[in-house]
Amino acid sequence: MKRRDALKIFGGILGGGLLLTSSSWIADNLNASQPNKLPQLPWTYKSIDPKKAAERAYFGFYKGRCCYGAFDAIIGTLQDEVGFPFTGIPTELFVFGRSGIAETGSTCGALIGVAGAIFLLTGGVDKEKQDRAYKIIQDVFRFYEQEALPKYIPEKPKLNMQMKATVANSPICHISVSKWCAVTKFKAASKERDERCARITADCVLYALKLLEAEYKGSFKGAYPIKAKTKTCMDCHDKKDALNNTKGNMECGTCHFDGKINKTTKHPPF
Amino acid sequence: MKRRDALKIFGGILGGGLLLTSSSWIADNLNASQPNKLPQLPWTYKSIDPKKAAERAYFGFYKGRCCYGAFDAIIGTLQDEVGFPFTGIPTELFVFGRSGIAETGSTCGALIGVAGAIFLLTGGVDKEKQDRAYKIIQDVFRFYEQEALPKYIPEKPKLNMQMKATVANSPICHISVSKWCAVTKFKAASKERDERCARITADCVLYALKLLEAEYKGSFKGAYPIKAKTKTCMDCHDKKDALNNTKGNMECGTCHFDGKINKTTKHPPF
Repeated sequence: MKRRDALKIFGGILGGGLLLTSSSWIADNLNASQPNKLPQLPWTYKSIDPKKAAERAYFGFYKGRCCYGAFDAIIGTLQDEVGFPFTGIPTELFVFGRSGIAETGSTCGALIGVAGAIFLLTGGVDKEKQDRAYKIIQDVFRFYEQEALPKYIPEKPKLNMQMKATVANSPICHISVSKWCAVTKFKAASKERDERCARITADCVLYALKLLEAEYKGSFKGAYPIKAKTKTCMDCHDKKDALNNTKGNMECGTCHFDGKINKTTKHPPF
Repeated sequence: MKRRDALKIFGGILGGGLLLTSSSWIADNLNASQPNKLPQLPWTYKSIDPKKAAERAYFGFYKGRCCYGAFDAIIGTLQDEVGFPFTGIPTELFVFGRSGIAETGSTCGALIGVAGAIFLLTGGVDKEKQDRAYKIIQDVFRFYEQEALPKYIPEKPKLNMQMKATVANSPICHISVSKWCAVTKFKAASKERDERCARITADCVLYALKLLEAEYKGSFKGAYPIKAKTKTCMDCHDKKDALNNTKGNMECGTCHFDGKINKTTKHPPF
């Protein structure tokens, strides 16, 4: 309901007597949809306590898994602290991203959750807004690829254990989980692996919040550039004036040539 | 604002005279957030015209790319035709998924867009709701992996061309695009590749709608089971009582052993 409509109703009551024939009419109109009310993206970020958000992400994992935990830790907190327009998005929507989207093992759900939150707070349809959000999201992706994770230690862990951290070299759930299982010898379907992913959900939220704070202060600088080796590949394969025959900027070596799964394959001769 | 709150306001006006000191108070409260109003997931699907939705997905691609095009074709249509609660979600949020999420080349954005929409309409936090949504989303993923795409031919194409279709064998943007470029010899950054992805966005929406219609009629059956070869791998690697050292159900052969990128690598001996 628009403000002028509200004033019209009250004007009607005051000026012309009670014209309302049913109280349900009022309630229905107060409940009406808000199709024109949503502000354009990006929606304004308000600083949130990273410690609280990390705990929310960690426990959110145990409620709705990685993608929900990550998105809810940021957007759910803004729902509580800011309200509208954040309250129109059910954070449960992001349960879709569990274990690489519906358990398919593709992109890590924690990354999808923070990517959605970062985009809502910095992005938009226009090219300029896309670029602004993407440079932040890409830095979180590379943090996930390059850092030994998890780092986060919960105050009251669900599972109190010495947690081994591994470098995923990939944003893909299947690769990230397989590497951790190979190193730690824990099963993929185990309490220990759950605990690992709950902590990584918190790690992704903590890093995303660090970048959001920086971006809103005008001091964002990505801390994780593309690796030199991947850059070399991209110089031919991803450049408009060269081969230009692929998309993306994930680490090439994880699957091609020097990665464990196919270290025997050679680059074709030039 | 809740109905009983609305009645309180009007009751106050009628019974005790005008207590309101400022009209802005009224407008602010009418605009207030609706934190308790959102229905629980899943939100009810209402049949939508697949032809119109496919065209919307196709043109949506050219507005906000794959992930936005897919999500908006379903949820944007429900915003127009149903209104609340769909209107609280800015479909532009899903621009985050462009080209495998923020152009990283991970999971195909069209898949992410339909996964989000399907989850909203069939899923929820409870295990039973998750399972219901995931079996549908997984079938769309395998449709994308196993079918030669694109199939969709727009009524008024942005680029009128004979479109070659390829089988991605993967839900990953980087792999899907690279295969198509290798077969067609078109560049990754080209109008032709844009047109290909716009059509695939429509393909994913058409197939998702087919499954949603079936699910709501109680007749859903996945048409794309896991391939026998992948099933053999999963029998050891993904089973709780066996190795249980990985996650996911993407096609194994695309990257391991018989895939082009590492066909020389052998499975370690048992």
